[in-house]
Amino acid sequence: MARLDDLGEKAIVSRILESLESGVAVGPGDDAAAIDMGSYYLVISTDIISKASHLPLGMTDWQIGWMVAAVNYSDIAAMGAEPLGLLLAMGLPRDLEDNRVMAMVQGADDCSRKMGASLLGGDTKEAAEIILTGTALGKVEKGGLLTRGGAAPGDLLAITGELGLAAAGFVSIREEIDCPEGRKALMEPWPRTKEGRTLSRSGHVTACIDISDGLAHSVHLLSTASGVAFELEWESIPVRWDVTQVAEISGIDIEELVLFFGGDYELLFTIAPDGLEDLKREIPDIRVIGRAVEGRENILTRQGKIVNLENRGWEHFG
Amino acid sequence: MARLDDLGEKAIVSRILESLESGVAVGPGDDAAAIDMGSYYLVISTDIISKASHLPLGMTDWQIGWMVAAVNYSDIAAMGAEPLGLLLAMGLPRDLEDNRVMAMVQGADDCSRKMGASLLGGDTKEAAEIILTGTALGKVEKGGLLTRGGAAPGDLLAITGELGLAAAGFVSIREEIDCPEGRKALMEPWPRTKEGRTLSRSGHVTACIDISDGLAHSVHLLSTASGVAFELEWESIPVRWDVTQVAEISGIDIEELVLFFGGDYELLFTIAPDGLEDLKREIPDIRVIGRAVEGRENILTRQGKIVNLENRGWEHFG
Repeated sequence: MARLDDLGEKAIVSRILESLESGVAVGPGDDAAAIDMGSYYLVISTDIISKASHLPLGMTDWQIGWMVAAVNYSDIAAMGAEPLGLLLAMGLPRDLEDNRVMAMVQGADDCSRKMGASLLGGDTKEAAEIILTGTALGKVEKGGLLTRGGAAPGDLLAITGELGLAAAGFVSIREEIDCPEGRKALMEPWPRTKEGRTLSRSGHVTACIDISDGLAHSVHLLSTASGVAFELEWESIPVRWDVTQVAEISGIDIEELVLFFGGDYELLFTIAPDGLEDLKREIPDIRVIGRAVEGRENILTRQGKIVNLENRGWEHFG
Repeated sequence: MARLDDLGEKAIVSRILESLESGVAVGPGDDAAAIDMGSYYLVISTDIISKASHLPLGMTDWQIGWMVAAVNYSDIAAMGAEPLGLLLAMGLPRDLEDNRVMAMVQGADDCSRKMGASLLGGDTKEAAEIILTGTALGKVEKGGLLTRGGAAPGDLLAITGELGLAAAGFVSIREEIDCPEGRKALMEPWPRTKEGRTLSRSGHVTACIDISDGLAHSVHLLSTASGVAFELEWESIPVRWDVTQVAEISGIDIEELVLFFGGDYELLFTIAPDGLEDLKREIPDIRVIGRAVEGRENILTRQGKIVNLENRGWEHFG
């Protein structure tokens, strides 16, 4: 017997996953579960956010609603699926004002619409604190399902967008540094729905995950699920000038922000080597940051020196 | 602006529903949302339970897990759908012991298996109290979807099973009265999955809802959605001997337990008049408790006297 704060969230989740023997096509254990519906897969993800675990100071109610939708649509995107909609279950303190509830619902609805989906329904109950659970649904063609488990040695490792911006936003609040784009990335993550669909349809993508808990942890999850190791090159990882600036002003190592913090909600995926040019025509800002090799140890080179890529990231109960 | 405890849960939910304009086939607003998938409807329900709102004293962790699954499968059953599976999102205090988490997961998994479905995945996060969100999925043939809105004057109003048992269980704990079946009904509700499927396939059922918040409230919801009124007969409502006994010992009016308390998770539905015999052959314990008429006022007769059937039931934030 152990307390959750001794074990940590990832250990608890692993133990739960081991206990389940599910008849579903994929999952539990991937970004979302996939159910075989005959001609396609139904993809479904659930994510709970509470003040204690997830919400940076200063978030508006609308942003809280957006966030609980976005993190789920990001999981749907990581499976290559087209989003269908969201259910929103809300635990709410009894002294909360109704307009605050409506703002949260609005945020979840707005995010759903931006993703081409809709808010399907929900539930509200009394709770000690604001705690929201979003559950997103999507569908994907039989051949287009992206999972964590398909990378092969020789595949290229790539990401959408840039890394570290949400981390910079978090630090910028705590340290009172000016970094508006970071704060927006942190509080209003944009799910890579469009990119997920393009990756799925391309036929070139062999594995995919979203980077919710940081690049390093996501690399390890892809590695374990696919049975390959990854070699990453620090210089290839795209980092914005304002992330570098927040690192410098705060004195926090830039690697911490880029590799270990999380909150970026970009897609991390592997590409069969001959598919890169094709994919780049469709998503120009794809960046190759490494490649899959045989073995088990994930490494990062920085200025030619090899460093072991630690398996740590955002951890709840820790 | 108003506080949730002034408004009450039902007012908040109504306001949220009004704000949504959804592209889905049914809902928000029914027991579950239904999405048109071409050859069938996908049905999806979410329900959040927290210590503050839902959990009777003395529930085991396994029962808490069973409960969050069961209330969602009950919604799926009310739509006539076959359950596919459940996602479980858990907000958990950091000092909780891991074996308690596993017991909750086990309860949700066991309920899923009993319903012919499976636990598909989930999420855990730190929270101030134990708070669980279940989201259940189901599918139903195009012609078999049951909603709240199809009752017509002349239809018979019927229920599965007996009423008031969960209420008796609740009171029996508070008043220290012996009522083991009531406590079991309260803490381990059995979703009417099989009956929901039979009602759906029969072709005789015109509207359906589950009685989670009490018979009276459910009658009013069916009435509003269908645009008919209902006339119920007290003497037709099946009530077990031990419910009557708990009412007598506790001094609580039996009508309170049977009509207004909730927690029974039976199905309440309407039948086209010529379909009753057919349905009874398939589900022998169906009880006709009233009928649909034109008008707006729902009434109950008791010993020949007409009483207005109040629209109240289990209310959160109240």
